[in-house]
Amino acid sequence: MKMPRQNLRTPGPTPVPDDIVEAMSNPMINHRGPEFRDMISRVTDQLKQVFMTQNDLFILTASGTGALEASIVNTLSPGDKVVAATAGSFGDRFIDLARAYGADVKVLEFEWGAAVDPDAIRRALRDDPSVKAVMVTHNETSTGITHPLAEMAAVVKGEFGKLLLVDAVSSLGCIPLAVDGWDCDMVGTASQKGFMIPPGLAFISVSEAAWEAQQTASMPRFYFDLASAKSYLERGQTPFTPAVAAMYGLSQALDNILDEGLENVYERHASIAQYTRESMKNLGLELLAEDETYASNTVTAIKMPAGVDHGKLMGLMRSDENVVLAAGQGKLATDIFRIGHLGYVVQEDIEEVVEALKTVLPKVGFSAS
Amino acid sequence: MKMPRQNLRTPGPTPVPDDIVEAMSNPMINHRGPEFRDMISRVTDQLKQVFMTQNDLFILTASGTGALEASIVNTLSPGDKVVAATAGSFGDRFIDLARAYGADVKVLEFEWGAAVDPDAIRRALRDDPSVKAVMVTHNETSTGITHPLAEMAAVVKGEFGKLLLVDAVSSLGCIPLAVDGWDCDMVGTASQKGFMIPPGLAFISVSEAAWEAQQTASMPRFYFDLASAKSYLERGQTPFTPAVAAMYGLSQALDNILDEGLENVYERHASIAQYTRESMKNLGLELLAEDETYASNTVTAIKMPAGVDHGKLMGLMRSDENVVLAAGQGKLATDIFRIGHLGYVVQEDIEEVVEALKTVLPKVGFSAS
Repeated sequence: MKMPRQNLRTPGPTPVPDDIVEAMSNPMINHRGPEFRDMISRVTDQLKQVFMTQNDLFILTASGTGALEASIVNTLSPGDKVVAATAGSFGDRFIDLARAYGADVKVLEFEWGAAVDPDAIRRALRDDPSVKAVMVTHNETSTGITHPLAEMAAVVKGEFGKLLLVDAVSSLGCIPLAVDGWDCDMVGTASQKGFMIPPGLAFISVSEAAWEAQQTASMPRFYFDLASAKSYLERGQTPFTPAVAAMYGLSQALDNILDEGLENVYERHASIAQYTRESMKNLGLELLAEDETYASNTVTAIKMPAGVDHGKLMGLMRSDENVVLAAGQGKLATDIFRIGHLGYVVQEDIEEVVEALKTVLPKVGFSAS
Repeated sequence: MKMPRQNLRTPGPTPVPDDIVEAMSNPMINHRGPEFRDMISRVTDQLKQVFMTQNDLFILTASGTGALEASIVNTLSPGDKVVAATAGSFGDRFIDLARAYGADVKVLEFEWGAAVDPDAIRRALRDDPSVKAVMVTHNETSTGITHPLAEMAAVVKGEFGKLLLVDAVSSLGCIPLAVDGWDCDMVGTASQKGFMIPPGLAFISVSEAAWEAQQTASMPRFYFDLASAKSYLERGQTPFTPAVAAMYGLSQALDNILDEGLENVYERHASIAQYTRESMKNLGLELLAEDETYASNTVTAIKMPAGVDHGKLMGLMRSDENVVLAAGQGKLATDIFRIGHLGYVVQEDIEEVVEALKTVLPKVGFSAS
């Protein structure tokens, strides 16, 4: 089997650096033995640095959604009132998840392409003091919007003292997220975004307040039960066989991230994102984010120009230029295309995309006016 | 990071062949693009051959327990009566899982080291016609016992027409399991056993009867919702970002398994297991399985000889002989040790274990009488 080496510009999976691929090729070990114990302890400590937290933190064998499921089922009981802010398909998915387990979710909906207004959360919490938790998406991958998490956290935690559950799948490790500084209770993310490793691992941090909620939370849980994860981690293990090769990759990725320095990683993402936005506008294209203050530093959503066929643009970029763009999702499926610029990315990757678009756009009937 | 190359004789993770490691090093692809669609369709078809089934089959990003959770939450409602047969820690775990989701489980317990008696299942089903499903473990990894699944299925399906949920984590792909031939409704397994790839993927087959049960099953589910998996698979996708690198490995592993031929794979496991048992007895050691009819072809459990320190034996085997044995689990933690012989294994691997034991056993105070 031979997969093509492309300029993969999906917002995850991201390309994997060679040293991570090599680390993943290490021989298997006993996941209940000393080598694994040493690795999980070291890796968990390093992950906490990237999460900027001293909270407990767990590595789950799952996609990012698994971490989000863990955040719900470990803190809530069926019937619990929850406020959820959404402005895209991942915000919506988080709500579907909570509802699947019986949460009573009050939805605050915002336009796709706009940011969540923290004041709306404030009003919702003022209106109903019985709300137990607030669910938010830090970076909405489907629209390329970074919601103002610090401000939302100031409302949820600072003003009302409610539980704050955060989907940080496409932000953590790329965009500043101060788990302790902002007092976020449960923060979930995944391996195939900022961490530059293949998909298959999810990470979740758990605050004291979240543990307290866990005591009475009665939603059923087994695979995603974090009390069990905690008791195994104390012995340097996981409850179920962990994705050992992916953990080798994670170990290397964390070395790389901490070597580069978190601030430098954030700066690299910010500058490449800025370059991406400017380049798209220079091509005569329009960003979905009308207010660029909230434009994401990990993924840029671009409006499909009038008259241009979505499949044709994506197809030619792929077949003729070896650039893989991401389609839109949900109700914006064919109205936008997206460029991922997160994890293992340098400006040259985006320069190639720009050159490719210059070639392909005229072929699909677009000319900048 | 450099992990040691050991004679890893845990019953999963198993060593990974070089061609699978190489396959896993392929570049990432868009999991919503054409390359992934081709791969998942091909791999799913090959997996069905190994499962000997034409049922639906799904690849989950999870440990094996995730597949077992899927089998429960997709077929049952809280309060549903279930019969579960157990004779080891994995049988017990399956029960804990069902109870966590509110199933009313009637437990049939058998001695650890013995096999489940199908007649006990028959009596339990005769006693209570309101039972909806039966949960069984095909191969109990913690004791090295293969339970008589064909006979149990004949009772559960043939005589009573109940749902049959099977933990096949350490049997499928190593020991004959005719999913369709024996009419098993849900069969779950994982990547790091017979499939010789790193942990991180779980597989589950779903019969017509299981789908029918799904219609009314009210246990909450989201990450493990198989209706969602089915609807995405029809488009060549998964609901959540899949473990792409592990799937590359799986694709290679399935090529290897089908090239070797399923019958030859079973035969190789049977003959190496037979060799293992004979060798242990020749060393003067005692098998946990008193009735060898049920001794597993994937893992052998050996009684710790009187007076021998468990940690000392395991430790010297590891430090001096580079052989990693598995400890016992649960109540047999230090009363047995286990030798895995599944997946990527040849007789020479076990010959090395035997030679190592010959050197180490006298050092820990054991001499065959």
